[in-house]
Amino acid sequence: MRIEMEPIASFKSCFLEKFGTPRQAGLAPHAHGVIQFLPPYNDPQMIEGIDQFSHLWITFLFHQNRWSGAPMVRPQRLGGNRKMGVFATRSSFRPNGMGLSAVKIEGVDRERMEIEVSGHDFVEGTPILCIKPYIPFSDAIVEARSSFAPAPPERVRVDFTEKVREKIEAVAEEAPTLHTLIEEVIAQNPAPPFHQEIGRLYGVRLLSWNIRFERTESGFRVIDIESLKA
Amino acid sequence: MRIEMEPIASFKSCFLEKFGTPRQAGLAPHAHGVIQFLPPYNDPQMIEGIDQFSHLWITFLFHQNRWSGAPMVRPQRLGGNRKMGVFATRSSFRPNGMGLSAVKIEGVDRERMEIEVSGHDFVEGTPILCIKPYIPFSDAIVEARSSFAPAPPERVRVDFTEKVREKIEAVAEEAPTLHTLIEEVIAQNPAPPFHQEIGRLYGVRLLSWNIRFERTESGFRVIDIESLKA
Repeated sequence: MRIEMEPIASFKSCFLEKFGTPRQAGLAPHAHGVIQFLPPYNDPQMIEGIDQFSHLWITFLFHQNRWSGAPMVRPQRLGGNRKMGVFATRSSFRPNGMGLSAVKIEGVDRERMEIEVSGHDFVEGTPILCIKPYIPFSDAIVEARSSFAPAPPERVRVDFTEKVREKIEAVAEEAPTLHTLIEEVIAQNPAPPFHQEIGRLYGVRLLSWNIRFERTESGFRVIDIESLKA
Repeated sequence: MRIEMEPIASFKSCFLEKFGTPRQAGLAPHAHGVIQFLPPYNDPQMIEGIDQFSHLWITFLFHQNRWSGAPMVRPQRLGGNRKMGVFATRSSFRPNGMGLSAVKIEGVDRERMEIEVSGHDFVEGTPILCIKPYIPFSDAIVEARSSFAPAPPERVRVDFTEKVREKIEAVAEEAPTLHTLIEEVIAQNPAPPFHQEIGRLYGVRLLSWNIRFERTESGFRVIDIESLKA
């Protein structure tokens, strides 16, 4: 049995590449992005009443990944050296390649057929397959137990050089949450577990900046931000 | 962009037909059923570690429905006479026809590659596209607001005739939860909003019984149960 689907929307994200994109929704509350409905799903009637909800479930495709057929994965959560069954993880390498995230509604634009959301974990251009309201009485299972990922991953320390602080301040009007967003993203320790020597350099593209940072003893230090605009 | 998917599992359900199948997960906690993995996804390695979680997210197909293209639906929740946008509901008639439910794990059988779950809302034979662990820190959003469906639907009263009580007692060994399951299902008022005259008769197939019940002034009365076994 083969099933054919098509995206109903595409996501315009603050995360321009996989690297740095949070590994779960809710980890970067200042991450904003826009659901852009695609024809024929860009009919305002299709979202009539959506304002009655604060959060949405987004079913999407991990479109930059392709499942190799491997039955097990090595979650970064476990330091990348212990395997778990693919269906016992939220890994982005999985059969049918589908992800699931709950996001907060920030605004609905009926004319453009766009919904702004926050707290997302979608890379730029993510194809969206389904949007549903979050219904607390059936979805918020507070008694659910998870001994594998009982709490959000520990955040690592993020410092900023004086130069970077000044640069961020200078663009505060254009990007008022840039400092917080950089902090939320890098505090998740996006670097691969085996490439974390002190002094190692990384770059991540967020919004319209390339953020350059280095590994320190206690975490990371942001050493530069460069505009991606020509 | 067309996306091809295939079911990773099929669901063996206590709900043998759409009628009576709960309209949301968690409404019938005594509803049990079994996720049966299909080849090549019936490899025990694929679920290694799944015992570390109490609940699972199931993404499935509403395989008995076909979306007509209508942008709005009439949720039974609103008595069937008010329309809402399809993406503002969990309606089973929707683009890509995908459903989403959180269920409780009751048991894992690695040899048969089956997972028994409860609290589900899947009709017999439901094709399953994805299984993920429920991760409380990102999925249980207790502050989520929903002014459309703020609480589970009100339950209607369910009575049983003396004859039915005796019949249920006689099969207690085979089906110890039959009484509770019938109550949980019929208390959801499965009957269409416009066909609820007092005295009207209904039948619903649960487990291996046909349950016959009638509308009363205050709810429903179960008047017979018939075995479906030859």
